Amino acid sequence: MAPSVEGSEEALLPDLPRGPLHAYRARASFDWKELALFLEGEDMLRLKKSIFSALESDPLFARPGRSLSVDKLRELTFLRCRRVFQLDCLRTDTLLQSPPRILALVTCLGMYDWSLATKAFLHVFVFGSAIFNSGSERHFKYIPKIFNMEIFGCFALTELSHGSNTKAMRTTAHYDPATEEFIIHSPDFEAAKFWVGNMGKTATHAVVFAQLYVPGGQCHGLHPFLVQIRDPKTLLPMPGVMVGDIGEKLGQNGLDNGFAMFHKVRIPRQDLLNRTGDVTPEGTYITRFKDSRQRFGASLGGLSAGRVFIVGMCVVNLKLAVCIALRFSATRRQFGPADGEEVPVLEYQLQQWRLLPYLAAAYALDHFSKSLFWDLMALQQGLQQDDRSARQAELGREIHALASAGKPLASWTAQRGIQECREACGGHGYLAVNRLGDLRNDNDPNCTYEGDNNVLLQQTSNYLLGLLAQGGPGEHHLLGLPAQGGPGGARLESPLKCADFLAAYPALLGRRFAVTSLQDCLDSAVPLAAYEWLVCYLLRESHQKLTQEKRSGSSDFEARNNSQVYCCRSLALAFLELTVVRRFHEHTHQPDVPPPLRAVLQRLSALYGLWSLSQHTALLYRGGYFSGEQAGKMLEGAILELCSQLKDDAVALTDVIAPPDFILDSPIGRADGELYRNLWSAVLQQRRVLERPSWWPEFSANKPAPGSLSSKL
Amino acid sequence: MAPSVEGSEEALLPDLPRGPLHAYRARASFDWKELALFLEGEDMLRLKKSIFSALESDPLFARPGRSLSVDKLRELTFLRCRRVFQLDCLRTDTLLQSPPRILALVTCLGMYDWSLATKAFLHVFVFGSAIFNSGSERHFKYIPKIFNMEIFGCFALTELSHGSNTKAMRTTAHYDPATEEFIIHSPDFEAAKFWVGNMGKTATHAVVFAQLYVPGGQCHGLHPFLVQIRDPKTLLPMPGVMVGDIGEKLGQNGLDNGFAMFHKVRIPRQDLLNRTGDVTPEGTYITRFKDSRQRFGASLGGLSAGRVFIVGMCVVNLKLAVCIALRFSATRRQFGPADGEEVPVLEYQLQQWRLLPYLAAAYALDHFSKSLFWDLMALQQGLQQDDRSARQAELGREIHALASAGKPLASWTAQRGIQECREACGGHGYLAVNRLGDLRNDNDPNCTYEGDNNVLLQQTSNYLLGLLAQGGPGEHHLLGLPAQGGPGGARLESPLKCADFLAAYPALLGRRFAVTSLQDCLDSAVPLAAYEWLVCYLLRESHQKLTQEKRSGSSDFEARNNSQVYCCRSLALAFLELTVVRRFHEHTHQPDVPPPLRAVLQRLSALYGLWSLSQHTALLYRGGYFSGEQAGKMLEGAILELCSQLKDDAVALTDVIAPPDFILDSPIGRADGELYRNLWSAVLQQRRVLERPSWWPEFSANKPAPGSLSSKL
Repeated sequence: MAPSVEGSEEALLPDLPRGPLHAYRARASFDWKELALFLEGEDMLRLKKSIFSALESDPLFARPGRSLSVDKLRELTFLRCRRVFQLDCLRTDTLLQSPPRILALVTCLGMYDWSLATKAFLHVFVFGSAIFNSGSERHFKYIPKIFNMEIFGCFALTELSHGSNTKAMRTTAHYDPATEEFIIHSPDFEAAKFWVGNMGKTATHAVVFAQLYVPGGQCHGLHPFLVQIRDPKTLLPMPGVMVGDIGEKLGQNGLDNGFAMFHKVRIPRQDLLNRTGDVTPEGTYITRFKDSRQRFGASLGGLSAGRVFIVGMCVVNLKLAVCIALRFSATRRQFGPADGEEVPVLEYQLQQWRLLPYLAAAYALDHFSKSLFWDLMALQQGLQQDDRSARQAELGREIHALASAGKPLASWTAQRGIQECREACGGHGYLAVNRLGDLRNDNDPNCTYEGDNNVLLQQTSNYLLGLLAQGGPGEHHLLGLPAQGGPGGARLESPLKCADFLAAYPALLGRRFAVTSLQDCLDSAVPLAAYEWLVCYLLRESHQKLTQEKRSGSSDFEARNNSQVYCCRSLALAFLELTVVRRFHEHTHQPDVPPPLRAVLQRLSALYGLWSLSQHTALLYRGGYFSGEQAGKMLEGAILELCSQLKDDAVALTDVIAPPDFILDSPIGRADGELYRNLWSAVLQQRRVLERPSWWPEFSANKPAPGSLSSKL
Repeated sequence: MAPSVEGSEEALLPDLPRGPLHAYRARASFDWKELALFLEGEDMLRLKKSIFSALESDPLFARPGRSLSVDKLRELTFLRCRRVFQLDCLRTDTLLQSPPRILALVTCLGMYDWSLATKAFLHVFVFGSAIFNSGSERHFKYIPKIFNMEIFGCFALTELSHGSNTKAMRTTAHYDPATEEFIIHSPDFEAAKFWVGNMGKTATHAVVFAQLYVPGGQCHGLHPFLVQIRDPKTLLPMPGVMVGDIGEKLGQNGLDNGFAMFHKVRIPRQDLLNRTGDVTPEGTYITRFKDSRQRFGASLGGLSAGRVFIVGMCVVNLKLAVCIALRFSATRRQFGPADGEEVPVLEYQLQQWRLLPYLAAAYALDHFSKSLFWDLMALQQGLQQDDRSARQAELGREIHALASAGKPLASWTAQRGIQECREACGGHGYLAVNRLGDLRNDNDPNCTYEGDNNVLLQQTSNYLLGLLAQGGPGEHHLLGLPAQGGPGGARLESPLKCADFLAAYPALLGRRFAVTSLQDCLDSAVPLAAYEWLVCYLLRESHQKLTQEKRSGSSDFEARNNSQVYCCRSLALAFLELTVVRRFHEHTHQPDVPPPLRAVLQRLSALYGLWSLSQHTALLYRGGYFSGEQAGKMLEGAILELCSQLKDDAVALTDVIAPPDFILDSPIGRADGELYRNLWSAVLQQRRVLERPSWWPEFSANKPAPGSLSSKL
């Protein structure tokens, strides 16, 4: 580290308290502060620290203890959201200057509490972006009102009976030229907008997606309209709007998800968000797109950004969970050699194998998340400059493919990882105060909203199959995918190079696992090579399956549906895993990595790659990439060896990614490692912990005379 | 069906309401009432119906809506528990006559609410059995007090810092001959009893496990003591007892888990539960066991029964979840052929593949659970008759091995299955009112209590490795396992025949997959044969790994720990899967199965077996059981073919296992299939759904002036 950083580092990254975790920290192979600086950079560390400090020093953000009612949780979340605006975390100028700060803000708030982060994010970024990106200058007057909270927004697309199939939405907007108004209407309750975040109790305005009808009855498809749903002075609903709260969810209960039905609600013509299509005062529909499908695609383009954010949110959840579980494992002792001292459960190979791959996944996916965010910014810069080049369009498709499989991979990895962490902490993991339940419950919706994971994966496999199709018209041309620069091969030079390896398709399918010693297996180059083969294999399998389905008379719809399981779905996931492995491999093997950090980072990269690959061992054997017992055993041996090598670095690796104790909010995961003192103290501080129950007289009185009501049975 | 049943069946199994599910019901290959009668029998159906009716007709059991505070939940659960006693569901004479009725009662209450079922179960069966099985006649006076709730009980083994390692418990019981009392003492807060169900608010008495010391200072190990912790008249703690509530958990919040510290609490000598060891008035320790290890094992023997019950509880959770998700999938329509009507999501192969294997698992594990319960009853009958035969001892070991891996398999299958069901219902699965969250959260502790799953699995692998060791002293004798009747082979005839296949060990390892057509793959004989090979393979791998570890100088402790991942752990799970597959295969292929039910039951058996086996495809290839691409593809093809064959039976199969709507308590899973009407109605009935929030003035006032507090950052 440069000396100039050294001085300020003391404040940025204070030393951690000495305690039971010290033994592991002392054995770490690297300096956790150096790694934190390398991964985050000084500016970002400073920003995060300032956000965390602001929350910790404000009593409104005091951890409330457990057991608040849903009503109270929502009130508190609203008040905190307002305070965030007062703190000016969301200042427009800052945000526009530095989108990474937006991501940092959302993830810092999320580390504290996802309901709060989501509430603010939906209001400013989802509602606000919808107005900014789908509207035009006449709508920009709403933007300042978002920041001073004169209005509060929500984004109303999903209906009770339709989510994934957005085109089947049934809310209507009929244009009435007599009054120059749209009439927003829900034909029945199945068309009620449903699940809309912030709509339950708070939102005054909604971006409502409805089928646009012009006089004469022609429908021009789904369009966004700005509709006032509540009076900002009273929070009472506007006439004709039936708006309410959908009730308790599995998690994120500080956020008020709601529903709305519209009974012929009239809004001014100008409140159509008219970026992609507009209606003249007389009622003529005008658009710059040639068909409604293209226009619809453009109007929903912003959803890709949502998925990129979700990847970041999932990574946060995984990070927090592994920090809690690993610090617990380093201090919880159970059993030991005969008559010896009990050993920390982290010393058990089984516990290492359960947790360390998820620690590696947190690091690998964190890097992927950041790099994808930078890609997204490049894309959006192009959009703002109205770049209509082929490269820009291809970049859009590539990012769409990455985000559409990135969200499933990140959300599932986090969901499984959190569950593993909860179980790895035994009973104490089941105690709410330790937070693993909240993390799991708050992460869970990431698996199904903004596009159900399984549905989204089809976007990615379609992208890959599309690249293949451009290589030739059919099966016999599979091997004819041209390399970049070759005739017709322009599309294969993907802007982010994620699919460029497909240019070597024929050679790749012939590739075989050739590692002969365990030592040689401990680098992420090994899984990287295997994944390239695997994606090619699954691409061929998927293509063959689709072709076979069509030959046997299936419609396109049937053929696609019958090619998902074991083929297209696996293809999309394997492609994303490959991309994550590749990016983290390149990141950890670049010359800029400070030498003292190389070993630990490369071990993390190798562990994530090999562990992730090991889910596909069956295919590696089936397709001939692996043969003989040794290949599979070497993969397993390498995973266990890396777990063993990383075990003593595990606590220091949590120190790099863990937020301050106040934010982490888990007695068993605190930095001082005083597991039992912290847990005991947290339990004793809960409400009425030692009091007898208020209903104690019910115990003393009214004893059952067994059988007294038995005639009922 | 016999005509005599026909008449009463109308009442027992009323017709289901006609509605959107009818289309699937009409396509079913079998009569759901016939299957229900075949699987449950008329008596059991009648018992369950009477319990369900009693709950439904009593306003105390009215579904409370969501959002009760933890305090309120506990009060309500206590009142309902008392009502269950008044209903006399728990009448001693009935229960003792028919243990299956106990299981039926617990699972019926659990289908309604696990907090209630667990509260009653812990009080009567865990606390009561501990007194009955660990105590002697002088303690039986407490039994009637359990049933009239004069006292309320809990079972206090786990301490804050020790769970799995029971021998390391640190609570002490010093005998004082001067007063003929034991002095129960917690040396520090880490020795506080912790996680004890019913202890938080309700229990008046606890069975407390403590290290027994006699005068002179000798410790005789862990013994159970009956300790009064609260005054039954006031529910105030007894002097010297600090007892409290550990607070909110991830689920089962109607149950009050608690902690207790004892400060030199004196109890009469007689309150030692003295079945396995006693202290004379003068302070001499007497026992009929030759060492403390043997005595300790006997005193904890009752835990096996707990695990068998847990298997049944997990099966209930899985059943409820698949019923909800499948009925949802049969009525939720999304997308469809171009310009055609939208199709139920159950028509998608991907959705079938996500859900139908869990439906099959629910049926297969249900059968396993029941059969294991019968085995347990045979064991307990032997215990009551003081059967000291070698067969009885072997039966105990075999059931211990089955229960120790059965609990992990059932709890993990349920946990994953519920999560898949929740995701398969999309956003609506995330709404609390649809109950998938409660099922997941209430099932979750089954993975870690009564023995952590990963720790328990070692019991089963140890059992199998022990059988192997008896076949010969070392590796070279691996093939020498004698068949039953051969010299030294007596132990290999396991009483339940679960391990008898190991007699064919040499031949089995040479077995190869030989199925050549998809059609031949559609029977559970195929996975059964593969599993026999797989268990032998993993047994050999585990043995070799252990041997290799020991040769390289590892202690027994290290060798065992380093042989769990990929070896012993997989061995235990594969053995249990084999047992479940075998029992369900035999059950569905027996001549008693009515011919109209054979096809569907055998498909369920094949699907569970093949799907479960497909997790091990990598090993099948690695070990040479599979070779070539076709084997793996055939396994996949068979799974998809069975899903397709079962798809039209899926709704009728839920009808067989679903409780009445009131018990199932999920708007999207109701028998009438009116998905949206039921969900909409449930949402509108929630508290204050259309009201503006109580804190609305906070919205209108105190608008943020952005940056007003920005100096803080």
